[in-house]
Amino acid sequence: MTALRVTLLAGGVGGAKMAEGFANLPNVALTVIGNIADDQDFHGLWVSPDIDTMLYTLSGRINRDQGWGVADEGRRALDTLAELGADTWMFLGDRDFGLHIYRTERLGQGHRPTDITLDIAKQFGIKSRILLPTDEKVQTQVCTEQGWLSFQDYFVRLRCEPSVSALHFEGIDAAKPTQETLNAIKDADLIVIAPSNPLVSIAPILEIEGIVEAMRAASAPVYAVSPLIAGKVVKGPADRMMASLGLRPNALGVAEHYAGILDIFVADRADSSFATQIKDVGMRPVFTDILMSDLAAKTRLAGDVIQMFVSETKRVSM
Amino acid sequence: MTALRVTLLAGGVGGAKMAEGFANLPNVALTVIGNIADDQDFHGLWVSPDIDTMLYTLSGRINRDQGWGVADEGRRALDTLAELGADTWMFLGDRDFGLHIYRTERLGQGHRPTDITLDIAKQFGIKSRILLPTDEKVQTQVCTEQGWLSFQDYFVRLRCEPSVSALHFEGIDAAKPTQETLNAIKDADLIVIAPSNPLVSIAPILEIEGIVEAMRAASAPVYAVSPLIAGKVVKGPADRMMASLGLRPNALGVAEHYAGILDIFVADRADSSFATQIKDVGMRPVFTDILMSDLAAKTRLAGDVIQMFVSETKRVSM
Repeated sequence: MTALRVTLLAGGVGGAKMAEGFANLPNVALTVIGNIADDQDFHGLWVSPDIDTMLYTLSGRINRDQGWGVADEGRRALDTLAELGADTWMFLGDRDFGLHIYRTERLGQGHRPTDITLDIAKQFGIKSRILLPTDEKVQTQVCTEQGWLSFQDYFVRLRCEPSVSALHFEGIDAAKPTQETLNAIKDADLIVIAPSNPLVSIAPILEIEGIVEAMRAASAPVYAVSPLIAGKVVKGPADRMMASLGLRPNALGVAEHYAGILDIFVADRADSSFATQIKDVGMRPVFTDILMSDLAAKTRLAGDVIQMFVSETKRVSM
Repeated sequence: MTALRVTLLAGGVGGAKMAEGFANLPNVALTVIGNIADDQDFHGLWVSPDIDTMLYTLSGRINRDQGWGVADEGRRALDTLAELGADTWMFLGDRDFGLHIYRTERLGQGHRPTDITLDIAKQFGIKSRILLPTDEKVQTQVCTEQGWLSFQDYFVRLRCEPSVSALHFEGIDAAKPTQETLNAIKDADLIVIAPSNPLVSIAPILEIEGIVEAMRAASAPVYAVSPLIAGKVVKGPADRMMASLGLRPNALGVAEHYAGILDIFVADRADSSFATQIKDVGMRPVFTDILMSDLAAKTRLAGDVIQMFVSETKRVSM
C-alpha cells in the first residue's frame, strides 16, 4: 500500500502538534507548508519561529513543557547580548541560536530559503517534508493602538495584549509560491489546514497568489481542523484577534472564514450545535475530540482525519 | 599624581596577561593596541580571537584554566551547528557566540570596528582602552607544506603542527592606522610591546604604514618584554615559527627582530647571558622574572616595567 500523501498548511504550536500527529501515523507521507510571515531579524540573525517550532517538534527536540523552543536550552548567548546592551525580550536559547546562525549564514550565501529548510530537516532526521509557501519575504504587521508592529513585537514583547484593528502582510503581493508548494498541493491525496491561527498563520499562506487557486484545482479534498473549541483558543490570540477584526470568535467563524476553500470542517464535539450553520457555509462539518493534549491525542486526531478521508472517498465513489 | 599613560601593543594570551598586569596597577592608564590579523569568519560571524581574549581577560570573564574563552561556557550552539553539518573545529562557546553575534550585527550596520570594540569594553566594565591598530581588514596567512592557510586554520585546526615557511598579511598595504592608535602612541608616557608572538601578533600591528614612524616620533620610550624564556615560548608556536623563518629562536632573536624600534628590552634572568649581544643590537637589556604564572606575577612584572621606566627617566634627566 502506498502512503497517503497529506499536505498540511500549518503555523505555530497548533500546526506543529497536528503535523506531529500525522507524522506519527504509518502510511502517511506528510508534507507541511509552513508559515514564514512571523519571521524576524534578531541581532542580525534571521529567526523563523513557526518553521523552527515545526522543525523542533518533528525532530523531537521541542521543549514539551512550553510547546516551542528546544529542550535542554541555555541562555548564555542571550545573557552576553544583554550584557552588551542588546534588546533581549525575544528569548533565543543557545541551541536555537545555532540554528539561526546556520540559516543566516546560508541565506547570506544566497541559498534558497526552501533548500535551507529542507536541509535542516534532513540533518535533524525529519522524515516529513517541510516546505515554505514562498522563498520571498512576507512579513505580518499588526495594527494596534500603539501603531503598526511586527508580529513578534505584538506576540512576544507585548504578549498579545494590544487589541488588533488590522493586519497587513508586507510583501505578499509580490510573493510567488514555490514550485515545491504548488506540487505538494497538486500531488496531495488530502490537503489539511491545521488548527492554527487562521488570520496570522494560515492567511499569509493562502493569500500568496496562486495557492488558493492550486487548492481549488487540486484533486485532493481540503479539510480544516478548527483552532477554536467552544469559543476558546487552546493557545495564542486567535479568538480575541478574530473578535476584534469582526469575525465570530468560534468554530463557526473559522468555517465562515474558510468558505469556498473547504470540503470538510473538523470541529470539536463541543461545537456540534454549529452543524447546520457550518453546512450552510458550504462544507461538511465533522465533530470529534480535537484537543491535542499529548502525542496519543495528536495521533488519534490525525487518524480520525485520515479515517474521515477514507470514509468520504468510499462514500463518494459508491 | 596623574596616571602614567602606558600604551601596550599586544596580541594573544601573553599580550592579555601583560595587559592584566598593567591594568591591575594603580596610577597606570592603560591603552592596548590589539591584533586583528587572526580574525576570521566562522558560520557567518566575525570572530576576533586576540581582541576577545583581551576583552575577556580585562573584564575577568576569561577561562583561567585555558587562558582563552569565557568561564562557565556552554557548547549548545556549536553542537547544533555540528548537527547541521557545519565544520566546528573552532571551539566557540555559547557566551562567546553572543559577542560574535553582537560584533557581526554592528559591522553589518556599518559601525567602525574600533567603536564596536570600545563599546564592548565599556559594556563589559573594562577601564582600560582597547584599540584596534586599523579599522581595515588585515589577515595573516601562513605558508606551510599544505599551502597557504588562514591563521586559525594553522593555529587551531592544525594545532600549529605544520612548519611555517612564510607569512603574509593580506590587506596590510592598504590598511591605515586609526587616529586613536596614532594618538595613543603620540600621547603615551611609555610604549610597551607585550610578550606576544613577534611574527604573528606584533608584526601585523607594526607593519601597518605609519605605526613604527609614530613610535619613533613619540616622546615615550619603547620597551618590549620577551615572549621567549631560555629559548622556549610560554604558549604558542613563536619559537618554532622564528626558527623556521630564519630568526634565532630565543630572546636575542626577538631583540634583533625589534632592532631600531626599542629603547629597552626586558628579558628573563635565564637569558642574561645575552646582555652584551642585545646591547650590540642597539637597546638596553634589563633582566627580571618575566614568567606570568598568576595575577601576582603579572602585576609584579608590570610593576617592574614601570619601575624601570621611572628609574630610566630619573637617570636620563640627571
